[in-house]
Amino acid sequence: MTSYPNSLARLVDSLKKLPGIGSKTAERLAFHLVKLSDEDAMGLARAIRDVKQNLTNCSICFNFTEHDPCPICGDAQRDKSIVCVVEQPKDLMAFEKSGAYKGVYHCLLGHIAMLEGISPDDLTIEPLLQRATKGGIKEIIIATSPDLEGEGTAVYLRDVLADVAKQRGIRLTRIARGVPAGAEIENVSGAILSDALSGRQAFGSDR
Amino acid sequence: MTSYPNSLARLVDSLKKLPGIGSKTAERLAFHLVKLSDEDAMGLARAIRDVKQNLTNCSICFNFTEHDPCPICGDAQRDKSIVCVVEQPKDLMAFEKSGAYKGVYHCLLGHIAMLEGISPDDLTIEPLLQRATKGGIKEIIIATSPDLEGEGTAVYLRDVLADVAKQRGIRLTRIARGVPAGAEIENVSGAILSDALSGRQAFGSDR
Repeated sequence: MTSYPNSLARLVDSLKKLPGIGSKTAERLAFHLVKLSDEDAMGLARAIRDVKQNLTNCSICFNFTEHDPCPICGDAQRDKSIVCVVEQPKDLMAFEKSGAYKGVYHCLLGHIAMLEGISPDDLTIEPLLQRATKGGIKEIIIATSPDLEGEGTAVYLRDVLADVAKQRGIRLTRIARGVPAGAEIENVSGAILSDALSGRQAFGSDR
Repeated sequence: MTSYPNSLARLVDSLKKLPGIGSKTAERLAFHLVKLSDEDAMGLARAIRDVKQNLTNCSICFNFTEHDPCPICGDAQRDKSIVCVVEQPKDLMAFEKSGAYKGVYHCLLGHIAMLEGISPDDLTIEPLLQRATKGGIKEIIIATSPDLEGEGTAVYLRDVLADVAKQRGIRLTRIARGVPAGAEIENVSGAILSDALSGRQAFGSDR
């Protein structure tokens, strides 16, 4: 059996290391890259190199950035007294896209998942404690995902932040769980409805 | 709204140009590449560059290769008198993986698809005619896919090769259509069963 030319086999192997890309998809992508214009293919190669060379984590919030501190931490318009704690820079971007938040962030760079070997020490929890201890923070919003690991991480953060929060008068909050905007009740899972019920709020005309 | 750092945005844009990769997947891949080890990420960038720089089409069969002619056309053990015509190098690899074929190939580099603007002139049909005219070929197996475009291309090839085949005594054949090995009849489509019936072969003990 004749196998792929070396450079093609290496490309397939490299592509297979990406998440959600198996052998078949890697081959399809590799063949496509071969056919792609030189400009587009080299553009991708360059983009990968640039991202590895230029991108670092902000020393304050650990968001990805090309300049430290990141544009959000360096923005005088943002309210530095509210810190929204997210798992990933991706989550931060989701909040930014919503346009609903004017405070700053803290990226944990993951969630606690003991079974996968991700312990609290692997996250940026220590720097978060230091930020809290340093003062100037009025509220920490824990915005980890409403899934098993995210909830576990939220509970861990609540416990580990309890002391400094009390000392410094920092309000600890958790993002609301409930029915997602735009959803139809009939299509929503029991777990979501259960959250929506237990988190129900007063709805009088005087609120 | 704060957007992605430049280098990250460029990487997402480059990834989005790949087939089957939308915005969400491109973002997911980009974030993964940022987290990937330098070695693995640079390995991918290098693999893309290498493939563009080193890979050409074999001047005989148009398979991808790093050396011209390709290992198959250059292999003295392969039967040069049988040419299997496939659409893509990917199809060629599928035949090679099966281990069932010892002849040589001809990659059309596509199929005729007038609606998408792919005409016979965009394929390597002219070089195939030249190979046939040059002599030394006993059989041309048309192994385009059993789908609309593949069948159309097969019929076109049959017509365009008819004269030279007659002159040179070349046998024109088409790969068999029927039930796929390992399939359960109950799960197979009517079109496949129809092919299997119309292509049925003698099954006597004397065959």
